[in-house]
Amino acid sequence: MLQLKQISSNKSFGGSQKVFSHFSKVLSCDMNFAIFLPSEDVNQKYPVLYYLSGLTCNELNCVQKCGFQKYAAENGIIVVCPDTSPRNIEGLDTSAFSWDFGYGAGFYVDATIDLYKKNFRMYSYVTTELIEMINSNFPAIPGKQSVTGHSMGGHGALICALKNPGLYQSVSAFAPISNPVNCPWGHKAFKGFLGPDESTWKAYDATELVSKYKGPPLELFIDQGSEDQFLKENQLLPNNLVEAAKKVQMPLIYKLRDGYDHSYFFMSTFISEHFAYHAKFLK
Amino acid sequence: MLQLKQISSNKSFGGSQKVFSHFSKVLSCDMNFAIFLPSEDVNQKYPVLYYLSGLTCNELNCVQKCGFQKYAAENGIIVVCPDTSPRNIEGLDTSAFSWDFGYGAGFYVDATIDLYKKNFRMYSYVTTELIEMINSNFPAIPGKQSVTGHSMGGHGALICALKNPGLYQSVSAFAPISNPVNCPWGHKAFKGFLGPDESTWKAYDATELVSKYKGPPLELFIDQGSEDQFLKENQLLPNNLVEAAKKVQMPLIYKLRDGYDHSYFFMSTFISEHFAYHAKFLK
Repeated sequence: MLQLKQISSNKSFGGSQKVFSHFSKVLSCDMNFAIFLPSEDVNQKYPVLYYLSGLTCNELNCVQKCGFQKYAAENGIIVVCPDTSPRNIEGLDTSAFSWDFGYGAGFYVDATIDLYKKNFRMYSYVTTELIEMINSNFPAIPGKQSVTGHSMGGHGALICALKNPGLYQSVSAFAPISNPVNCPWGHKAFKGFLGPDESTWKAYDATELVSKYKGPPLELFIDQGSEDQFLKENQLLPNNLVEAAKKVQMPLIYKLRDGYDHSYFFMSTFISEHFAYHAKFLK
Repeated sequence: MLQLKQISSNKSFGGSQKVFSHFSKVLSCDMNFAIFLPSEDVNQKYPVLYYLSGLTCNELNCVQKCGFQKYAAENGIIVVCPDTSPRNIEGLDTSAFSWDFGYGAGFYVDATIDLYKKNFRMYSYVTTELIEMINSNFPAIPGKQSVTGHSMGGHGALICALKNPGLYQSVSAFAPISNPVNCPWGHKAFKGFLGPDESTWKAYDATELVSKYKGPPLELFIDQGSEDQFLKENQLLPNNLVEAAKKVQMPLIYKLRDGYDHSYFFMSTFISEHFAYHAKFLK
């Protein structure tokens, strides 16, 4: 039982939306996370949907802006929203940090370069410590978990599922960075966390990982707004992922939503479909 | 046709969530407001629900946190969210301002004391200029409008409806400041905007106005969380309003929601019921 400190608790749709902090051994720092519990029935256990947030976000953005609580309550699913990076590391040289690299932008990788490798290990945090901590402290059904995310967090959801066959029952992503080795955001982050050898970057790239996937059948569900500014700027590259999946006959649902952009207004409009989707695999 | 400047536009639930600024003659300053248009059909006209926000809020809080867009789209209702006060008045002595008085806290009154009477006229702005501006610039059905709000904005919704019989088809309020002449927030604001003569304050107090109401039948719909911190601190005093309505046989629906607090998590849980309620009167 790890020590958890409750930061806030608000009743919402018959359940409760809470925020906690805990000390992460993997990241060597305190981390906040948000958790929605779908009812106040203490004898009930629930499957869990992990939601990974995008650049500049913390554990609260999705909780406040996405409106998922209604669907989590209706479907009886716990939702866990971790922060997007370690924070406030004492003594760390942050001179290279910016809005798209560093704090608020951990990119769900395990850093290998000396400067960041002690703390920037979001990949291991999300796929191991976070799940264990949730399972030991909340009414979660172990093994019944799925993952989703938005933008950088959509990339995170895809690579966490593709690199860990069977760990998640299902995966979906809103406007994910689908091929980071080929976009400016990915270049900057991967070079920063993994060093200049581009061959090491592929281990965290969904489009690359699709062809290497071996495990139980996995389907990818991608949601994308047609008027997404970052789609137009070639930061997201979903078509590369679609093509890669087609090549190896991995099933992929690609929904292009006419007129929608990259914002939470896009996500809140379609989040109900993602809960319906994950509920099929989690129930 | 007043000059409107579009600040942002995001597709949401098949409609669009927009923010504009315009110059308000009533307030003698530029004002932002948010507007949700329930579809992209330019030939269709819609009734309007005005939403008045609470202390410290601007036009965006409800737009981002309440999740009303789904219900506005489903019911075919335009939603307008004005800011809660004039802002950035050049040369104004703001030394008396604080989080619960002044900018972000206009209390939906027309100030009478010299310092504020030129700009702090949120009552007239909301009940006249804002409605005229919406009707002239957007596909609104004139005369088909209702009003709701949260906390200070719940007070605003109630007094706007009670002081203008027939102007709104229906009124509801989340956790409204129901009897401001008897609570600390109301005392501070009314003294600040209206001066020390307490008899002048009653013209903006829902509990006082109920007994003076003369007009078409009006029902009040009040939603309140039982664990609301400000309910416990006697800032809201809904029971005084319930009693006053009972005395004059004004119909009042009072829903006390077990365990809910003052936050947007409370409001987002029950906003669907308010749309269903207003739709009955607006359609």
